[in-house]
Amino acid sequence: MQERGIPAKKLWRELREASEDDLHFGDGGILGSMCTEPLPIAKRAHAMFLEANLGNPGYYKGTWRLERETLRILADLLHGKNLGGFTVSGATEGNITALWMARNTTRRKEIVAAKTAHFSVRKAADLLGMRLVEIPHDDEYRLDVDALRKAVTKDTAAVVAVAGTTELGQVDPIDAIGETCLDRAFLHVDAAFGGFVLPFLDGGDLPRWDFRVAGVSSLVLDAHKMGMATIPASHLLVRDAKHFERIAVESPYLTTVYQTSLLGTRSSAGVAAAYAVMRSLGREGYRKIVARCMKNTRAIVERAREAGMEPVIDPIMNIAAFPHRDVEAVQRALEKKGWRVSTSRNPPALRIVVMPHITARAAAAFADDLVAVCGKSGP
Amino acid sequence: MQERGIPAKKLWRELREASEDDLHFGDGGILGSMCTEPLPIAKRAHAMFLEANLGNPGYYKGTWRLERETLRILADLLHGKNLGGFTVSGATEGNITALWMARNTTRRKEIVAAKTAHFSVRKAADLLGMRLVEIPHDDEYRLDVDALRKAVTKDTAAVVAVAGTTELGQVDPIDAIGETCLDRAFLHVDAAFGGFVLPFLDGGDLPRWDFRVAGVSSLVLDAHKMGMATIPASHLLVRDAKHFERIAVESPYLTTVYQTSLLGTRSSAGVAAAYAVMRSLGREGYRKIVARCMKNTRAIVERAREAGMEPVIDPIMNIAAFPHRDVEAVQRALEKKGWRVSTSRNPPALRIVVMPHITARAAAAFADDLVAVCGKSGP
Repeated sequence: MQERGIPAKKLWRELREASEDDLHFGDGGILGSMCTEPLPIAKRAHAMFLEANLGNPGYYKGTWRLERETLRILADLLHGKNLGGFTVSGATEGNITALWMARNTTRRKEIVAAKTAHFSVRKAADLLGMRLVEIPHDDEYRLDVDALRKAVTKDTAAVVAVAGTTELGQVDPIDAIGETCLDRAFLHVDAAFGGFVLPFLDGGDLPRWDFRVAGVSSLVLDAHKMGMATIPASHLLVRDAKHFERIAVESPYLTTVYQTSLLGTRSSAGVAAAYAVMRSLGREGYRKIVARCMKNTRAIVERAREAGMEPVIDPIMNIAAFPHRDVEAVQRALEKKGWRVSTSRNPPALRIVVMPHITARAAAAFADDLVAVCGKSGP
Repeated sequence: MQERGIPAKKLWRELREASEDDLHFGDGGILGSMCTEPLPIAKRAHAMFLEANLGNPGYYKGTWRLERETLRILADLLHGKNLGGFTVSGATEGNITALWMARNTTRRKEIVAAKTAHFSVRKAADLLGMRLVEIPHDDEYRLDVDALRKAVTKDTAAVVAVAGTTELGQVDPIDAIGETCLDRAFLHVDAAFGGFVLPFLDGGDLPRWDFRVAGVSSLVLDAHKMGMATIPASHLLVRDAKHFERIAVESPYLTTVYQTSLLGTRSSAGVAAAYAVMRSLGREGYRKIVARCMKNTRAIVERAREAGMEPVIDPIMNIAAFPHRDVEAVQRALEKKGWRVSTSRNPPALRIVVMPHITARAAAAFADDLVAVCGKSGP
């Protein structure tokens, strides 16, 4: 550390240069991230509650009320009654916390999940000293329920199902999974991405995937993804709040007697941001955002299909994946044209996440470039 | 969730009401928290990097550079060379991550810590399936090194020492602890609070407590406490970066191949905030802040001593604790006068944290009220 502070002008130049080296959602070319630019109201609410720390809730009764209210809104959205829960930093923390509860409650050590589950489940298993039993998926990349029935045993602490897989946006058959898990094992639903998409999809003939499924024990969803809030704003909901007792640690010198969160100090500006967007948008607002993302996703898929490119699955959410013999080459070629796309590994494919910062015009331009690049490097 | 969004005006009223129900450091009465109002430059830098997510570093090359630079500044401050590390959400995450590395590297299960260690060590032990061996402290509430020598065995994965205990701001004899741990067990230093105090204390005849001690394997310090940055900004530094490999998880579809952090999505606005304050203040700036806090702490202690109230230990940092037969009653009486103080349990005492938002005038007024209240309810 240097002895003297540097002048404000020099510091701002350094920060500005750093910011210029970051990518920004507002530039419109990012199709490889599940995050997006937060709504302006989310940014303002975040700034207003920058000091708040629900790790010490006695000092932040207003923020605490916003958190309770947000959880109530989400419980209503996801058809839960008297749910327990709190805001977490992201679905990784949510997944770890749910599996920690499951391990401590059941005193068992096995987690069952399809290989399409998020890598944070593997991380959680290592962290918690649990064993991950990976089961196959079906042809549509959904957890295979027949395999699950065989895999759930007296050693199973928890099953993880996904509502919106990271790679394809696929939804596991949570209704059927719930039947298998009921009274046998915890069922944790990772709805990090799908939580703010599925309730707002047009049509809505999806099988049930939320707390309407009796076997669902807990669910996490990220307001900082399709919820349009700021990072960190993710929500862990549990059917039975008493399970939190199993992970409670005494917290002397704080304003609460026990702490049940993985983290101690908790950045809570995102709580206000999440509250603000949910109150500001309502279901109607989210439906519009999701409809626009789906329209743009379909436009990209249609253009690709015309050129003979078939997606891995017909998109359920605003994620499309196209198999290709050299995905990295296509990714690099698209990057040269200003598009950032991601790749999936199962199967090897270009992965495109059509977030709200992608306009209809950008989607059309991207689709043209995608087809041109893939045509050039062969199907 | 309601069908339609509510008008902006109504939403702002709700947010304002919530904010009014929170306590604010700027109001000057909080003497029970280890956080403070961030510097204005920290708030502005935070807002500028609100989208940044170092969970996906390939998109945030500028933020990533700020993080690397911040770690380099801290390594220099703490006398480390070629340290590994990254920004974490707080010392709880830092402690868990360090102990996770220690467990996976040594394949042992025991953690040794004094009962004066932060409760997150107990939380980490449960989470990681490790066993916490609690050892006594000496009369001055420092880890007892003789007890440590007996407690460290072939089953010890890690020892946790504290530079700035939460209850008293005491510093464990890390130099001697390091000798015991060297080549035998990981030594993790929890400098959540002390990390931004000890290097800036006047006098500086403290025994060595940072990377100058050969046995120290890792250290965490919170820029969002005495570092004057925004939450979340904490830094985990490790002597040997290769230990991170033991907790790495493959991260497909992100811009990095492996992820070594506990969290996935990482709120990284605090990275820019931490960078901004460190560059802006320099050692000189931090020394001034620490000197002012220490002066105010000593003023409170002197006034109390005049009234016959002796602190548990002579304060080393800006934390003072006063034993009392009914700490809760004193706490309540002070709250009525607009002061928020905390309590410690070992020993039962009023706990006063004199953060930078406490002015000299507030410290004097508080000391008067403290003496009056304690006089009234008896010594």
